[in-house]
Amino acid sequence: MSVSTISWEEGRVKIIDQTQLPHRLVWLYCGNLSSLWRAIKELKVRGAPVLGVAAALGLILGIKNSKAKDFKQFSKDLDRTIQYLSSARPTAVNLFWGLSRMRKVAYEHRNESIGRIKNILLKETFKIMEEDKRVCRQMAIYGASLIKNKDRILTHCNAGSLATVDYGTALGVIYKAKEQGKKISVYADETRPLLQGARLTTWELLRNKIEVTLICDNMAADLMQKRQVDKILVGADRIASNGDTANKVGTYALAVLAQAHKIPFYVVAPLSTFDLNLKSGKDVPIEQRKKEEVTHILGKRIAPPKVKVYNPAFDITPNNLITAIITEVGIFRKPYEKTLSKLAKRARE
Amino acid sequence: MSVSTISWEEGRVKIIDQTQLPHRLVWLYCGNLSSLWRAIKELKVRGAPVLGVAAALGLILGIKNSKAKDFKQFSKDLDRTIQYLSSARPTAVNLFWGLSRMRKVAYEHRNESIGRIKNILLKETFKIMEEDKRVCRQMAIYGASLIKNKDRILTHCNAGSLATVDYGTALGVIYKAKEQGKKISVYADETRPLLQGARLTTWELLRNKIEVTLICDNMAADLMQKRQVDKILVGADRIASNGDTANKVGTYALAVLAQAHKIPFYVVAPLSTFDLNLKSGKDVPIEQRKKEEVTHILGKRIAPPKVKVYNPAFDITPNNLITAIITEVGIFRKPYEKTLSKLAKRARE
Repeated sequence: MSVSTISWEEGRVKIIDQTQLPHRLVWLYCGNLSSLWRAIKELKVRGAPVLGVAAALGLILGIKNSKAKDFKQFSKDLDRTIQYLSSARPTAVNLFWGLSRMRKVAYEHRNESIGRIKNILLKETFKIMEEDKRVCRQMAIYGASLIKNKDRILTHCNAGSLATVDYGTALGVIYKAKEQGKKISVYADETRPLLQGARLTTWELLRNKIEVTLICDNMAADLMQKRQVDKILVGADRIASNGDTANKVGTYALAVLAQAHKIPFYVVAPLSTFDLNLKSGKDVPIEQRKKEEVTHILGKRIAPPKVKVYNPAFDITPNNLITAIITEVGIFRKPYEKTLSKLAKRARE
Repeated sequence: MSVSTISWEEGRVKIIDQTQLPHRLVWLYCGNLSSLWRAIKELKVRGAPVLGVAAALGLILGIKNSKAKDFKQFSKDLDRTIQYLSSARPTAVNLFWGLSRMRKVAYEHRNESIGRIKNILLKETFKIMEEDKRVCRQMAIYGASLIKNKDRILTHCNAGSLATVDYGTALGVIYKAKEQGKKISVYADETRPLLQGARLTTWELLRNKIEVTLICDNMAADLMQKRQVDKILVGADRIASNGDTANKVGTYALAVLAQAHKIPFYVVAPLSTFDLNLKSGKDVPIEQRKKEEVTHILGKRIAPPKVKVYNPAFDITPNNLITAIITEVGIFRKPYEKTLSKLAKRARE
């Protein structure tokens, strides 16, 4: 847990370039808005919770050179930046959550000087980062209460320290269980097309001395059939008010398989991943990514040039397949329409 | 359908080197037993039905230089060859079927001269190849009766012309449906780790002017949830007497998902793929392949060196998830223990 996935350093956003892992641990410094936008778009920084942080820091980059003399001018720069950052990726709601929180803070201080507002916004990003660290650890405590010694846990994509500031959501639960003295082994789905499981999850689990076995996505069912999986833990990119969960494509298949094999299926996500304005998962916009992510691997072509491709980045797991949703304020269970309504009420207040 | 995946040409086995596809259509000539053994082991030639043919032709290579003067000596050369070829791959039963058929023919002619036995065995391989062509077309006729105009068919791995002499099992059904004037579109699972779907299935479907969309294996569930898949068609590597089916890893997941989404799930396989001595799928030996197939893609590393890997080449789909099994003698349905018992009876006679 010694490295931060994202931080603010001398006026620049410092991130781990996740496209270079597991081969090299390379730091990337984004000194302006467009370079950070590209880093988000190209998944150099990815993972729902950390996208909330990246959005807030991106906003700082976007307004730091604002020449606005009054709040009216400043709010135009602010909204232009927000609009631009919003276009980087459509599904993970944390991005919009981070931007909207920053915007709200700016408007709350609209009567202050522009210089002071900029300062307040920068402080807010530090708060967001600190909160992420605290929230992940709190989720992990709740989650670890569900984990037994010797559990064999299957996970998909990367919901670890690399998807947050420094601890993780689904993998945070595993780190906490280990801290509690439980022996845990993990099966990591490689997670095609971009191989976040093979590249990132294995990397950070090995660094944290947790036993991990890499599988291709299509091997998970075989392990479940052989009773080699005790629990499935995944993160989330957006959770609707009824508990329907958007997460990395392949998650839905695991949830169906988990039900067929009577294996508990847990989603681990902070409140910033909930979009309580949405009635169900049907309303979540799903990012379609480019064909080449499927037809090429590491720059090499694996399929004929003329083939058509379907490449959604996420899928929707319906609430009835989710055993529990673990958050920083507790563990939620079915019926989610009812149990999550308290959150919705709190959000409205 | 103009090319043969495997043939006998001037004393050598001529195969398409499938590891070169879709980039290059390269022919490989195996003039001796060990080069053919390597071609099978390295999946330059793969697919259950064609492995039956490759085994028979391999046996010809193994005995062609036999200096045996009598059948006793000759049978030693024969059995050594059979044992060696048997070691190439353990799961697809067609390999053993081909070898055992050839051995039986040799023994039936044990009183003939060695030269004449060699000739008879070569003729038997031609018969096996002709049968494969005929059997595939017959299965396709039965299978196509289940296919409707505008069906969207999902398939896994490659069960096409490249897995047989020239027509295919699951893809043969699609070719026949097209010949009947039905418009078919196909979703091809890329089929990690060795990408037979991305490399081979897309290649042969495009050559045959059939609309094909490539997906990562973990996207199939999303398509089913969106009602984009009407039927699932796969081949088989070994079918037990109760209908349990071993096929490329990932097949079992599709079968569970098909049931959850009420999508028909069909297995298309010739009788040579049935192993009626086996009571159930539990008895099928599953080939475990090397770690590097998962940790590397096209020679490039995608995961940390120290990670453990689970890499079974096949999985078992239990009979209850299979809507029907399509063979050259008709379509079999549940309960397979009963319906397949006629085959078992016929095999014993």
